[in-house]
Amino acid sequence: MLPQKFLSDLEVAIGVKAMITNQDDIAPYMIEQRGRFIGQTSLVVTPATTQEVSDIVKLCAEHSIGIVPQGGHTGLVSGGIPFAGDNAIVLSTSRLNKIRTIDPTNNTMVVESGCILQTIQEHAAQHDRLFPLSLGAEGSCQIGGNIATNAGGINVIRYGNTRQLVLGLEVVTPTGEIWNGLRALQKDNTGYDLKQLYIGSEGTLGIITAAVLQLFPKPKEQQTAVLAIKELEDALPLLNLAQSMLGDALTSFELLPRIGIDFSLKHGQGVVDPIEGQYDWYILMEASVAITHSNLKDLFQNYLETAFEKNWVQDGVLAQNKSQSDSFWLLRENITLCQKPEGGSIKHDISVPVSSVPAFIKTANEAVRKMIPGIRPHPFGHLGDGNIHYNLSQPIDMNKEDYLNHWEEVNRIVHDIVHSFNGSISAEHGIGRVKRDENQYYKSAVEMQLMQNIKTALDPKGIMNPGKLIPVS
Amino acid sequence: MLPQKFLSDLEVAIGVKAMITNQDDIAPYMIEQRGRFIGQTSLVVTPATTQEVSDIVKLCAEHSIGIVPQGGHTGLVSGGIPFAGDNAIVLSTSRLNKIRTIDPTNNTMVVESGCILQTIQEHAAQHDRLFPLSLGAEGSCQIGGNIATNAGGINVIRYGNTRQLVLGLEVVTPTGEIWNGLRALQKDNTGYDLKQLYIGSEGTLGIITAAVLQLFPKPKEQQTAVLAIKELEDALPLLNLAQSMLGDALTSFELLPRIGIDFSLKHGQGVVDPIEGQYDWYILMEASVAITHSNLKDLFQNYLETAFEKNWVQDGVLAQNKSQSDSFWLLRENITLCQKPEGGSIKHDISVPVSSVPAFIKTANEAVRKMIPGIRPHPFGHLGDGNIHYNLSQPIDMNKEDYLNHWEEVNRIVHDIVHSFNGSISAEHGIGRVKRDENQYYKSAVEMQLMQNIKTALDPKGIMNPGKLIPVS
Repeated sequence: MLPQKFLSDLEVAIGVKAMITNQDDIAPYMIEQRGRFIGQTSLVVTPATTQEVSDIVKLCAEHSIGIVPQGGHTGLVSGGIPFAGDNAIVLSTSRLNKIRTIDPTNNTMVVESGCILQTIQEHAAQHDRLFPLSLGAEGSCQIGGNIATNAGGINVIRYGNTRQLVLGLEVVTPTGEIWNGLRALQKDNTGYDLKQLYIGSEGTLGIITAAVLQLFPKPKEQQTAVLAIKELEDALPLLNLAQSMLGDALTSFELLPRIGIDFSLKHGQGVVDPIEGQYDWYILMEASVAITHSNLKDLFQNYLETAFEKNWVQDGVLAQNKSQSDSFWLLRENITLCQKPEGGSIKHDISVPVSSVPAFIKTANEAVRKMIPGIRPHPFGHLGDGNIHYNLSQPIDMNKEDYLNHWEEVNRIVHDIVHSFNGSISAEHGIGRVKRDENQYYKSAVEMQLMQNIKTALDPKGIMNPGKLIPVS
Repeated sequence: MLPQKFLSDLEVAIGVKAMITNQDDIAPYMIEQRGRFIGQTSLVVTPATTQEVSDIVKLCAEHSIGIVPQGGHTGLVSGGIPFAGDNAIVLSTSRLNKIRTIDPTNNTMVVESGCILQTIQEHAAQHDRLFPLSLGAEGSCQIGGNIATNAGGINVIRYGNTRQLVLGLEVVTPTGEIWNGLRALQKDNTGYDLKQLYIGSEGTLGIITAAVLQLFPKPKEQQTAVLAIKELEDALPLLNLAQSMLGDALTSFELLPRIGIDFSLKHGQGVVDPIEGQYDWYILMEASVAITHSNLKDLFQNYLETAFEKNWVQDGVLAQNKSQSDSFWLLRENITLCQKPEGGSIKHDISVPVSSVPAFIKTANEAVRKMIPGIRPHPFGHLGDGNIHYNLSQPIDMNKEDYLNHWEEVNRIVHDIVHSFNGSISAEHGIGRVKRDENQYYKSAVEMQLMQNIKTALDPKGIMNPGKLIPVS
């Protein structure tokens, strides 16, 4: 129950239209994509300006009411919903959706946090620029959420994570002050780089209201290929060869297992097998350049020839046109969807050094097979970044619920192996509520304490996204 | 005067050989390159292991003694020396100089903070990799100092600042604990990105003892050119054209004024004028690719042809061989040195959005000429990053000391203009002691408070590099 004084002051500050109190209207903000938890709150606010965000936060601070910032609501770790007992409201950034400015000469644009990622991509393209962040949810996720979770996606190998694409931020702090850090500078060594602290902090240190984004020249030519490999180990020299023969043109280097292709062929719409015959592993790779009249196709063909000569590739196909390259990507995009009809899937979003990916997959496969005979490992994803979505489909003849009951046990085995490779148990999805305790189990006490000290210093009342990422002390 | 108990405990921990107490031996650690200040201390310690650093910090914390970390001692803002009254010792990282490991497949290496930058570059090259950080002091600066100051240099336009080249850190915190954040991962979203806080914090939050560095494929082909332009404004479309016609191959885009070339020809050793005739402004640009058999030369020539057609370039020369490209770079490297014989120089290290560089230079030139008639503006540097070393040589007939007495007054005028362009008063050199108060003048109260809160949270006793970057409260 929120205090009446709080509600009436809020109404004065932002107006009743920006306050959702009816549970039917609140429901969509509470139900997540993966549906593991359902949020609970009595108020969702939808401010339209940074000043309104500031007003809301000041009132919440005064009344010690928690605030859960929510963007496009596409997160996978329950970071964007309040849990029962949190005494928290939801602040939706959906109406903070203006593209403020674009400066193509400086390769920057200033956007509010509620802008949809795809809208930003399109706006940049209209000015012959690329905003390279690209991921499955781009049609509905918001840039504020991308920044708060340091989203990854399919172009990281070339352009980096969201962190590398943000030059400046505007943030409302947990005391309701507005920090204007909207600098459009490539270089600025005038103190602690505060924006870095907010990027990836999952709403626990403040609310991102706007950002300066880094743009790039728009790619003019690209090449896409699917390669079949026999041994997973061969993917490493193949990647290094691509890095030296294609240089910065390499933008994607994705791993697909045969089982993923089988699932996609069986359950996907319009999916075709790109290569005749069956191989254990496939690489989907793409290279692109911002220049016209490049020799990218020749370079790519030389690369493939060298890879064949070295015997690192068994078979391969270079897309001859846009529709063929689209069909390769369709295969990749169907990978997650097409696991669903195969029953329960225990998921991991891990990273290890790129050089350790094959060893990690082998060790983990062996361990989980030993634990649950018949389990079907389905590792796929961003091999070029060392980031594998290590998903495990249930044995064919097992009851789904029985299988999913092993979730935490399996997590522990897989994460122990990740830890032994000095890896990360959350490469791109973040921690939220789902992985909070698991994260604490693996982080050193020194690191947890440093994080806690920062949290306490910046959010002394603990009102920002309570219970997420940082354990409640 | 340091307490006897502190000194005897320290001797037990690190041995007398790692303690320099003789003022003659201490002197080199106190005298800086630019010589604006001379440091003062009674003890320099030279630990050889992270554990020794930890032991030292614990003893300093116990006795509330300040610690000034010092690397290669090449900084320009007096960030690496203790001032009289600081009650601080110097911790030199020179003996923490091991390259721990290199993993060419993962494109990473792990180095201790006292490693010389050039040693790191050479070690990477031996493994057919590039560590792209490159700057004037590379023969003596240490990577720990580069990281603590987020050094820039000549390849930022392509590879980013030091921040973008660091994947993980090992840090001794102000309480003497060792934080092992030596992760060699491209993606890791498991909490606040603590390393970002230490990068660029100038030793005020802890002591960096080791780092995981990002390597790149070694460039195999490169092209270097000097172009003469008539109007400074033409540099902007010229840069954008390079970005779209050369793409990621563009690695340097440096601005040189005619006065700089004149100074270099007059005072430099072996400097030649690259282009017949005299023009107001010159661009030194370089492009490189990691691949062999590229068509970089054709691309570069197409680029130059287009630039001529557009009338953005008056004249230009593409280096025909290594020795010609070296001579172009010699011109650039002589720029700072050859200002010295021309008398006093009031210096600024500023950045603005790239699109504002011409307007900034025009506005600033006008303002300083109005203030000191005959003053000789000499703006040069990393135009591609919006980072201009806005140096001002004295009027020919003025007394040097009289001129330099205007330093702060001129700073204020120039920095006010920088501020009006939403720029930075320290693009790559940092704040240290020299710019501390000036920085505080321009930063918002909100930002200063956030920085202060973080400093207090992580260094409650205020022993880490006291008085630098953050005002002593």
